[in-house]
Amino acid sequence: MVRMKLVLAIVQDKDADSLAKEFIQNDVRATKLATSGGFLRAGNTTFIVGIEDDRVNEVLEIIKKSSHTREQYVSNMNMDAAGTSMLGKPVQVTVGGATVFVLPVEEFKHF
Amino acid sequence: MVRMKLVLAIVQDKDADSLAKEFIQNDVRATKLATSGGFLRAGNTTFIVGIEDDRVNEVLEIIKKSSHTREQYVSNMNMDAAGTSMLGKPVQVTVGGATVFVLPVEEFKHF
Amino acid sequence: MVRMKLVLAIVQDKDADSLAKEFIQNDVRATKLATSGGFLRAGNTTFIVGIEDDRVNEVLEIIKKSSHTREQYVSNMNMDAAGTSMLGKPVQVTVGGATVFVLPVEEFKHF
Ligand code: NI
Ligand code: NI
Ligand code: NI
Repeated sequence: MVRMKLVLAIVQDKDADSLAKEFIQNDVRATKLATSGGFLRAGNTTFIVGIEDDRVNEVLEIIKKSSHTREQYVSNMNMDAAGTSMLGKPVQVTVGGATVFVLPVEEFKHF
Repeated sequence: MVRMKLVLAIVQDKDADSLAKEFIQNDVRATKLATSGGFLRAGNTTFIVGIEDDRVNEVLEIIKKSSHTREQYVSNMNMDAAGTSMLGKPVQVTVGGATVFVLPVEEFKHF
Repeated sequence: MVRMKLVLAIVQDKDADSLAKEFIQNDVRATKLATSGGFLRAGNTTFIVGIEDDRVNEVLEIIKKSSHTREQYVSNMNMDAAGTSMLGKPVQVTVGGATVFVLPVEEFKHF
């Protein structure tokens, strides 16, 4: 019998689409829950993944790649007194980050 | 002490109402999560069920009965060149199907 | 290595905001899922909390405090035949109540 694990991944909304795509490309069956935001970081999405024991590390790598914390430079559009818009000085912001739980599964059924 | 299990069932939206009704009729307490779709099959609903150890099989049977994969014949309305609508040849489609996880529970509280 | 647990708490919508506030004040990281209602009681909210083994009881106490069952007296506004509104006799109603599962976690990652 194949042992299964349940992987619960809470990622930022902006990482959810690329993570979903990675899951499909790697033949990982995932279900997306509508998550109405964590507290510290707004806009989280939760994925439930049922996966064979020996593919857990693969799934963790996929999640890590798509949603790890990283720095980005963002330039906002500003408007000066004359109404001319100009690109503001780039600001460094931290994006991404995922919280992942691997849970034991006693029974797994597909009807 | 009664041992509890957590049953997580991901079913198709179209099976969710009848499954909910079956849970109520069989005195199974379930919570429905808003699931924003799996990838392969659009429109999934996730149920969380807390259940005593010795009723897990009963719950699995209820889920199986309400949402197992089955074939259905569907006839689409077609329109011919003259604009006359006619019932198309019945097409066989697969509906239903559930993914179910039974998880161990260390503590169960009701406040 | 710190052992983690996953606490899944299903509370009434009306208790969700104060519970969320308590989690923040006690430095408990929680994620709120959009739950589309239980069956018996409409309007439930589900929280997922990842917490260290030795803080599980603290989390259970927080949930209990914010969402245990309690009696409340509610007075409805009634209107008599002449169209005069008057405060009805107070009626006792039961509010609150939470269902909580503590699940074992095999791996916990933060990317
Ligand atoms: Ni990277
Ligand atoms: Ni059948
Ligand atoms: Ni109280």
